[in-house]
Amino acid sequence: MSTDSWESIAAEAQKHRDASIDRLQPPLPGLPATADLPLDVTSIPAAVLTPQEVAITEASPEHVLQKLAGQEWSAVDVASAFLRRAGLAQQLVNCITELTPERALARAKECDDYLKTHGKPMGPLHGLPISVKEMVGMKGLDLNAGFCGWWGTVAEEDAWLLDSLWDAGCVFYARTTQPQTLMHLETSSNLYGVTVNPYNRNLTSGGSSGGEGALLGIKGSCLGIGTDIGGSIRSPAANNGVYGLRPTANRLPLGGLSASMEGAEHIMPVIGPMSTSLAGIDIFMHAALAKKPWLRSPSLVPLPWTPPATLASTPGKPIKVGVLWDDGIVKPHLPILRALQETVAKLQTAGNSQFEFVDWTPYKHDEAWEIIASLYFADGGAEESAAIASSGEPWRPLSRWIIPDNPHVKNLSIAELWALTNRRDAYRAQYAQVWNDTASGVDATTGDLLGAVDVILCPVGPGAAPPLDCARYWGYTSQWNLLDYPALVFPVGKVDQQRDAKDGSYQPRNEQDLYNHELYDPKVYENAPISLQLVGRRFEDEKVVGVCRAMEAVLKTAL
Amino acid sequence: MSTDSWESIAAEAQKHRDASIDRLQPPLPGLPATADLPLDVTSIPAAVLTPQEVAITEASPEHVLQKLAGQEWSAVDVASAFLRRAGLAQQLVNCITELTPERALARAKECDDYLKTHGKPMGPLHGLPISVKEMVGMKGLDLNAGFCGWWGTVAEEDAWLLDSLWDAGCVFYARTTQPQTLMHLETSSNLYGVTVNPYNRNLTSGGSSGGEGALLGIKGSCLGIGTDIGGSIRSPAANNGVYGLRPTANRLPLGGLSASMEGAEHIMPVIGPMSTSLAGIDIFMHAALAKKPWLRSPSLVPLPWTPPATLASTPGKPIKVGVLWDDGIVKPHLPILRALQETVAKLQTAGNSQFEFVDWTPYKHDEAWEIIASLYFADGGAEESAAIASSGEPWRPLSRWIIPDNPHVKNLSIAELWALTNRRDAYRAQYAQVWNDTASGVDATTGDLLGAVDVILCPVGPGAAPPLDCARYWGYTSQWNLLDYPALVFPVGKVDQQRDAKDGSYQPRNEQDLYNHELYDPKVYENAPISLQLVGRRFEDEKVVGVCRAMEAVLKTAL
Repeated sequence: MSTDSWESIAAEAQKHRDASIDRLQPPLPGLPATADLPLDVTSIPAAVLTPQEVAITEASPEHVLQKLAGQEWSAVDVASAFLRRAGLAQQLVNCITELTPERALARAKECDDYLKTHGKPMGPLHGLPISVKEMVGMKGLDLNAGFCGWWGTVAEEDAWLLDSLWDAGCVFYARTTQPQTLMHLETSSNLYGVTVNPYNRNLTSGGSSGGEGALLGIKGSCLGIGTDIGGSIRSPAANNGVYGLRPTANRLPLGGLSASMEGAEHIMPVIGPMSTSLAGIDIFMHAALAKKPWLRSPSLVPLPWTPPATLASTPGKPIKVGVLWDDGIVKPHLPILRALQETVAKLQTAGNSQFEFVDWTPYKHDEAWEIIASLYFADGGAEESAAIASSGEPWRPLSRWIIPDNPHVKNLSIAELWALTNRRDAYRAQYAQVWNDTASGVDATTGDLLGAVDVILCPVGPGAAPPLDCARYWGYTSQWNLLDYPALVFPVGKVDQQRDAKDGSYQPRNEQDLYNHELYDPKVYENAPISLQLVGRRFEDEKVVGVCRAMEAVLKTAL
Repeated sequence: MSTDSWESIAAEAQKHRDASIDRLQPPLPGLPATADLPLDVTSIPAAVLTPQEVAITEASPEHVLQKLAGQEWSAVDVASAFLRRAGLAQQLVNCITELTPERALARAKECDDYLKTHGKPMGPLHGLPISVKEMVGMKGLDLNAGFCGWWGTVAEEDAWLLDSLWDAGCVFYARTTQPQTLMHLETSSNLYGVTVNPYNRNLTSGGSSGGEGALLGIKGSCLGIGTDIGGSIRSPAANNGVYGLRPTANRLPLGGLSASMEGAEHIMPVIGPMSTSLAGIDIFMHAALAKKPWLRSPSLVPLPWTPPATLASTPGKPIKVGVLWDDGIVKPHLPILRALQETVAKLQTAGNSQFEFVDWTPYKHDEAWEIIASLYFADGGAEESAAIASSGEPWRPLSRWIIPDNPHVKNLSIAELWALTNRRDAYRAQYAQVWNDTASGVDATTGDLLGAVDVILCPVGPGAAPPLDCARYWGYTSQWNLLDYPALVFPVGKVDQQRDAKDGSYQPRNEQDLYNHELYDPKVYENAPISLQLVGRRFEDEKVVGVCRAMEAVLKTAL
């Protein structure tokens, strides 16, 4: 910990970041001053980069891998292109904590040399650049979890997940922003300020993996790593129109991460992929699990990644989708409901009976929030408070909202913690029963549920990316953290100024609903991406990815 | 809870138990008065039961199932035989809390009728009697977890594991004793007194599933259900010369159990099988997991029981066994070390190069005990103290030893709990590394460890069944609870008066070692069964069973 003022720490952190970008060669082209930027900055990088840099950075990860394996693009060219676009992204949306050009280019050269020498790629991620949320440690680099007071801590080892990806041949090149405490669905810290949304700079990039979200949204990355304990992969994926998977807990290793509340296992954080393509999610999970990481990380369940295709619906048996339109607490804004309706309609009309839709009735999502919000900060937020106090930095608005102003946060006794853990387990069993009850029967030999819902399709939040400091409802994502269900976010459209007018006659149900309702105005949410969420039962991560693939095949035909 | 004195509660409990035995028809034959019983009572039941009753009760579970499926024995005859032998067992070793003759015989008749009507067994456990530790709830029956103050609580549902077994066709007929607090490696309560060892009534049956252990040891059951958080399946299995499996946590469901500290997940309790045969363990696990219990119990990992055969060593590649001779803290008594040496020698000489043995160096087992003992009672034992105080019953000696007299028990703050959980996870990762380091390399494609140890072979405790109130070292079993490794106990012999003389020259290493050393005298341990323990890595339950099967095939040839 530093004894400097938080302001000087922040200045030092930003100087370190800027220097890492200034080392890019050739130097980045000039951009308009921040005040002169348009709301939508997504097309700016393509206007100033070379045609090859644009081609590389706008390709999907599977396409980049193909070009690398075919030696059409060198790994050095690919790394350089993404480094440069990430450098521009920093100037446009403030999403980077540092670039690592020397490490990245040396590694990329190693990949190129390997391919030349051996005549084959280094591994399934050969030469692919991967961006990484700052809290995921990289040996010898800073690790601060969003607190000024933690700045200056240096990681002693690479995070264990990174080792698996490295072993598969990837290139790490960019580290991305996160909020103070890591517990916002936005990205606002005293170290780096606010990360904004590339589609509309007045809106949040989401969080807590909001640096990743914004970087992917502006195509400064095609595959990145986030973490999620209440929506922190899914909110930024949704807000920036990219894919994000919250895997089931204990599938991917958490070794080497920096965060408060280490040792708290009441609600397990997870680490997972974010990508500009669905195939990117699949490729990432496969590489991460290919070599039995559970032998090193004994918390993991020894389940390899089973290719999604094998888990898709059997011919003649439709994939049954429960549609959760509304959680009963906070009604989603009109663009979300419209996108959900249109998606279901397209899948029904163009789906050739591949899908069957039923309404999913939410089961006590208010109780779910009460349980998870109480379990998040079982020490009453003491550790976060101490980490903030250690540098004298001020509380960011959403840190205040989720800890001191959160009525569910309390310093628990062990007996209270056990009672809450019991409530959590009881709720999980009840929700499993709700799901089982969607079946018409049980196969007497296998125990399989006959005709049960396969996945839940639902909003990712009560609206698209909100204006800054307004992401104050977690229920649409935290619900699945409480249940430890895998959840995948995928983009379906954008807010439409014509069709998404505000419903002036709506009568809000409660204070949270009123807050959310008042946030909405189509003008405010202009150009915001809209995404949806597919949710499976525990350990059905592959099924969720497989169903999304089947849906996208239809949706692309229907568009 | 009752407002009666604990003495009157205990009298009522015992009256209820005796009445359940008195309802057996025909009435049980008379037995010698307790004072006149020999130390070894294992052969007494066979002397007073009918030849068919003896044949049934002395058969292994797989043999009983075969006879039932072939209609050579009716389910009613089988249930009646086990009920009667269990009734005798109660008089000889005090292991029963109640028999359920009416339910059992009605169920057995249902099995017989089904087989007659359908021409096939009801399921893989058709007609097989299964005995159950009292804390595992049965709808409408008492549920007390060993506390007088909890007596009178009635289970509202069957424990969830029982539902799976019931569905497979089994018959529940006997409920068995457990100690006060459930946290002894013996079985001593104020409700029912002390359960003793059928091989030597001066010794303990072990615990906390000691009623099961004693009942299986005297063949009043061939398949039973215990629970284990520090050795509670394995200690009684070992002490009574039967098989017992502590599965990896979250493989079998815990729904419907009664115990203190519900909601504590720092050290997970498990439920698992105990049996007079190894096949019984396999049959049980298969039936319990055949119909996807994880759909009802969302804490479970969705892993079906993969037949052990498929996990045995590949031809030409020996099974590599790490032998943990001594944990470095408390040296096992001579009979244990002799049995371990003889077992290894037999497997080496008669094993046809199937096995390779290396010494396993214990890694900080003292630290392991410190961590687990601190995590067991994170509330400082407040819940147990309250449960004991609620009836005014006295503390049993081993309850006192493990809670108020245990230097590691402390009422923790949430921050302290998190720090300890972190220490637990760090220790688990270190132990995984120790295991990984036994490999000579890693397969570059699969990540498999080349030449690594497959299983650990070790003692189950620092001696055979000790005299009453002396089971004060848990390290040989609790070690694997801390690591959540599957561990299987199997019998290998008995204490030998000639060969197992005390080593008078031994210099104990510490106070615990001194206590254990002073316990030993071959005369005191006369006739005590000796068992060993096979330990695998997390979720390698099937491998452990498979290796034991391969070992037994050799050991039987060698005998």
